[in-house]
Amino acid sequence: MNSFMDRDFLLDTQSARHLFHDFAEKMPICDYHCHLSPKEIYENNQPEDISQLWLSGDHYKWRAMRSAGVEEKYCTGDASGEEKFVKFGEALQYCIGNPLYHWAHIELQRYFGIDTPLNAKTAADIYKRANEAIKNGDFRPQSLITRSNVKVVCTTDDPIDDLNYHKLLKDVDGFDCKVLPSFRPDKALNIHLDGFAEYIKALGKAADIEINSYKDVIAALLKRCDYFDEVGCKVSDQAFDYVPFATASDDEIEAVFKKAMNGEVPTQAQGDVYRTAVLLALGEKYHSLGWAMEIHIGAMRNNSTRMFNKLGADTGFDSIGDCEIAHTLSRFLDALDVKSALPKTILFNLNDKDNVVLATMLGNFQSSEAESKIQFGPAWWFLDTMDGMTNQMKTLGNLGVLGKFVGMETDSRSFTSYGRHEYFRRIMCRLLGRWVEDGWYANDDEVLEEIVKGISFDNAMKYFGF
Amino acid sequence: MNSFMDRDFLLDTQSARHLFHDFAEKMPICDYHCHLSPKEIYENNQPEDISQLWLSGDHYKWRAMRSAGVEEKYCTGDASGEEKFVKFGEALQYCIGNPLYHWAHIELQRYFGIDTPLNAKTAADIYKRANEAIKNGDFRPQSLITRSNVKVVCTTDDPIDDLNYHKLLKDVDGFDCKVLPSFRPDKALNIHLDGFAEYIKALGKAADIEINSYKDVIAALLKRCDYFDEVGCKVSDQAFDYVPFATASDDEIEAVFKKAMNGEVPTQAQGDVYRTAVLLALGEKYHSLGWAMEIHIGAMRNNSTRMFNKLGADTGFDSIGDCEIAHTLSRFLDALDVKSALPKTILFNLNDKDNVVLATMLGNFQSSEAESKIQFGPAWWFLDTMDGMTNQMKTLGNLGVLGKFVGMETDSRSFTSYGRHEYFRRIMCRLLGRWVEDGWYANDDEVLEEIVKGISFDNAMKYFGF
Amino acid sequence: MNSFMDRDFLLDTQSARHLFHDFAEKMPICDYHCHLSPKEIYENNQPEDISQLWLSGDHYKWRAMRSAGVEEKYCTGDASGEEKFVKFGEALQYCIGNPLYHWAHIELQRYFGIDTPLNAKTAADIYKRANEAIKNGDFRPQSLITRSNVKVVCTTDDPIDDLNYHKLLKDVDGFDCKVLPSFRPDKALNIHLDGFAEYIKALGKAADIEINSYKDVIAALLKRCDYFDEVGCKVSDQAFDYVPFATASDDEIEAVFKKAMNGEVPTQAQGDVYRTAVLLALGEKYHSLGWAMEIHIGAMRNNSTRMFNKLGADTGFDSIGDCEIAHTLSRFLDALDVKSALPKTILFNLNDKDNVVLATMLGNFQSSEAESKIQFGPAWWFLDTMDGMTNQMKTLGNLGVLGKFVGMETDSRSFTSYGRHEYFRRIMCRLLGRWVEDGWYANDDEVLEEIVKGISFDNAMKYFGF
Repeated sequence: MNSFMDRDFLLDTQSARHLFHDFAEKMPICDYHCHLSPKEIYENNQPEDISQLWLSGDHYKWRAMRSAGVEEKYCTGDASGEEKFVKFGEALQYCIGNPLYHWAHIELQRYFGIDTPLNAKTAADIYKRANEAIKNGDFRPQSLITRSNVKVVCTTDDPIDDLNYHKLLKDVDGFDCKVLPSFRPDKALNIHLDGFAEYIKALGKAADIEINSYKDVIAALLKRCDYFDEVGCKVSDQAFDYVPFATASDDEIEAVFKKAMNGEVPTQAQGDVYRTAVLLALGEKYHSLGWAMEIHIGAMRNNSTRMFNKLGADTGFDSIGDCEIAHTLSRFLDALDVKSALPKTILFNLNDKDNVVLATMLGNFQSSEAESKIQFGPAWWFLDTMDGMTNQMKTLGNLGVLGKFVGMETDSRSFTSYGRHEYFRRIMCRLLGRWVEDGWYANDDEVLEEIVKGISFDNAMKYFGF
Repeated sequence: MNSFMDRDFLLDTQSARHLFHDFAEKMPICDYHCHLSPKEIYENNQPEDISQLWLSGDHYKWRAMRSAGVEEKYCTGDASGEEKFVKFGEALQYCIGNPLYHWAHIELQRYFGIDTPLNAKTAADIYKRANEAIKNGDFRPQSLITRSNVKVVCTTDDPIDDLNYHKLLKDVDGFDCKVLPSFRPDKALNIHLDGFAEYIKALGKAADIEINSYKDVIAALLKRCDYFDEVGCKVSDQAFDYVPFATASDDEIEAVFKKAMNGEVPTQAQGDVYRTAVLLALGEKYHSLGWAMEIHIGAMRNNSTRMFNKLGADTGFDSIGDCEIAHTLSRFLDALDVKSALPKTILFNLNDKDNVVLATMLGNFQSSEAESKIQFGPAWWFLDTMDGMTNQMKTLGNLGVLGKFVGMETDSRSFTSYGRHEYFRRIMCRLLGRWVEDGWYANDDEVLEEIVKGISFDNAMKYFGF
Repeated sequence: MNSFMDRDFLLDTQSARHLFHDFAEKMPICDYHCHLSPKEIYENNQPEDISQLWLSGDHYKWRAMRSAGVEEKYCTGDASGEEKFVKFGEALQYCIGNPLYHWAHIELQRYFGIDTPLNAKTAADIYKRANEAIKNGDFRPQSLITRSNVKVVCTTDDPIDDLNYHKLLKDVDGFDCKVLPSFRPDKALNIHLDGFAEYIKALGKAADIEINSYKDVIAALLKRCDYFDEVGCKVSDQAFDYVPFATASDDEIEAVFKKAMNGEVPTQAQGDVYRTAVLLALGEKYHSLGWAMEIHIGAMRNNSTRMFNKLGADTGFDSIGDCEIAHTLSRFLDALDVKSALPKTILFNLNDKDNVVLATMLGNFQSSEAESKIQFGPAWWFLDTMDGMTNQMKTLGNLGVLGKFVGMETDSRSFTSYGRHEYFRRIMCRLLGRWVEDGWYANDDEVLEEIVKGISFDNAMKYFGF
């Protein structure tokens, strides 16, 4: 029996241990997609206790606690830090098979020096020991980022954001990680949601353009792209149930836009017409700027009206949708590709039924503009698990060129979540190591070193041009 | 090489063997969903031979035989018991990888004391030996249930059923298993099928309510819920291609109902309006009674018109559908949840593409009313296989709280099918044992005992309140 | 650590090695579906070099090269044979986990006697050594087919084809492989595509029938079936996004047909009406001729307009679709089955989400006309991978009768791709061997020999009646 989550955690062959410890482990981190707050990084405050660090904003943990039957007051309510942590520890022991269990223990080991398994019996004691570690150490964001050997962080930012904190962070002494913005225009695309008209006004203001038509929306967004580019942006990100594709005349698109600006909700088909037009213009812009376009497909958000009314978005009430996605995604990418205006693109799916759809879609639109110009994004959110990551890499391996994969990002809101890169690399080395061990891939250390270091860090740096 | 299906069948690590033999094996069975006949349990007849026991009503076996090219007369026809059994044995040897193969051998070993593999060469001899065992033993339903250490059986019953046999069974001396009804209102929901109008009349009669509107249907169903509750019912069950959700005015719903009562077939969209209204009323009722609501999604039934005309339903001509299910399921659950009227709910999928959809849907609607109030039902019917069960548990482990899982039910029509609980527990202990063995989960015997006994039996007893 | 792709490649248990080396390895090949050119087989030319053999027509290889960032001139362009091969070798080293990597090395070993792993460092040298082997050996199609122990090859042919090369091949001395046509009526079904009207005229000419209505189309196709049957055809093949099923009156179908013949594009729903009528007539004909009907579901073709305009179809720009397929497929099969006119049928899916849909659909329509009359086709094209094949066999094992499976076909355009049968058999023996080794299936060598030889060759020969 292996020891619990020791040095060789997940590394079940000699080859896996070699690939991880000799190649992957020491590589820096390029976190090309996350939800960290540049303000928090800049302000750089020491957390009060591990509950603030771990439980004040992490919907993964709340969700697990609720699923174990824990009352809401211990999740987002007014229970004390200790009470919350103990309830979390109680819930965690039932989370057998959940990545939260591994993430929590990796973080306890790496950041707090605590090797004890967290459960109902140990939670109170671990709470004390972790708080001692915080008291005696530097747990401020910049320190955690630096300790984690992170070279690039791409945050997720609205086009109207002034990016002030990104600018300020460039001049912070002794903090060498690049903190770059990503351009996330979802609010300008979500024409069917409450608040669209107000948002469009704010966008006009940010871009200093009076918006009277959907073409003005596009003009404003493109202007903001230029601004983001000046501040160092290299990545855009958009999220959809399915990627829309519906063409129409200017007049039709304009009619849909007017309708929405008048506070009416367009139908789904109408909304798609507007979204398609804006998205095509953005894609072309990203291409001209040399940005990568990330597309996250398949989340179904804010399912609980009861809890949305209490807590708002991003609080743990999202799940996985199951729309058909292949046809319109193909048409959208083709519409850019046929104009030689398709940017580098990373496709992420949240429903694993779409693994093969995306991993084969890539191959339709590759070109020598970049190595694996169209990428299959790493397993994400609900798929960010041992099985999810393994399946994503196997699928990419089976159907594409795994050796050129840009690898992991945290997609996280927490400063101790860099352990997810370690988790990913262990799983990657486990998979590749087994293939070598079984004689399925030639045991050529030079090639393997390039591939493992590539997937860990180098491929992403080269692909994005950081 | 391991011996064929021996004491440690499926238990491939020391941890797996420990978890199974020391914790899981001896736990009683809570069979919270099956299709056993309360009449047959009450009448308690000794079977004539193993063909009657195994082949007179088991569409799994008929289907395998037909797939191997066996003529229908050996399945449902007038061939002799011996001929049928021998044909089954011939077919079974080609069923490599099929759970039928394992189920059959577990049953031969546990109930008949026969360790010989069943195949073309051995079938005739095993037929004789099994019949000897029946002749010299007690193979009556109550005895088989008692021998199998079953504490609760929930049958599947129509709202118009008088539940007479359930009542009679309460007073049978020396038979301590609780045989409880489950409320299955499918016929009152299937407004598009032949016989709906007649069924509604029968429902009115059973409830002693004159049914003139869809609201009377609801009233009658709720009255029958109360009756079922009196007889000990704790579970309702419903089956859908997809869970409907379409709201409409009373008048619209009433128009659809009238149409159907006049013998016209409503469109799918019209039917959904009626189904939604009735289902929401039922959900609220289940919640008020503290029942659990089981929802089985994804069967496509009676595909062969030729064989349906010969043999009727449930004879082996069903398969797996592939509808989109996420959106309407979310809206249905939310409509109850927002009124704080969502009952304990167990979601079962038949298409494994929906594993992640359901396993994440759970987390949207949990509450402290119960531990894992919304459950991901065990792999069922076509997914009731080594791979299906393993994937269901891994998916729940990855995305939810596996330690609170209510575990297995047989979903069976046969009195020797309790071996499926053993099969499930071996697979569960194999999975958990490997996680412990590999150092992925802390080796804390106290916690593991609680989890293994919980998934085997305790969680279900607590969850349903038996 | 195992040696790289040695004699026991993929055979990880003693049982697997026994099943492969003693039973599977020596069986001949029945390649019941491929895209080889009967003309090329007949003309029997020696290739100039390995680049012509490997890279002149293989869209799998081009696709991998493009995905690694290789310029088009090295794929389909005017670079030299050596340049192309070296670029392929460079790309291949990043294809870790891709079946191309294994196929290439199996072919290097078996046909060229080269054991060196192909990568950037070795490509130029391997290019020379392979060309030496070609220069000194017989690499003509008939020799490669004979060396590979292929007994039957079914090519894929249009109904208007005169099958002249199939006839000529019957009389070639010293070449004993049966090269039979397959009937692929896709162009007569693709009423929505450019060129339909012209094709129908050509079909009329080939059948010597003046086509004025859709019924004449059917008459012409049935006449061509008879012609194909005379030349030895036993298999038809058709490919769909989803199998259509939409019934309509003769007049409605005729109106759709007229519309298309006038150069208008029918809607999808209109097209389905026509396709359904033609397909039902064909199905009935196949049944009367004793042919097997292959149905390939789920490819999404020619996604890149830019590259289609340059290179045409079948050049590496296809991917996997995600339509719903269960309902109409069930209705189509039932419409034939209810008339006792359903032919032997093999269902192939390209999206692995449909594995369980197809593997359970089979069971709805079996009959004693053949053993496993309705078959689950082997993992195909993008799924023709270690994982894809293993999942297809596990799924069939779980849900059907794996022992009666007709096994592998190459689906290939290349004369050295028979290594894919070896790859398949190794994976099959790995899977079955593990089941035996773990005590899940009885270790009865006689039964296992029949099953392994059956899946390798015998089942297909019996099923198709070659």
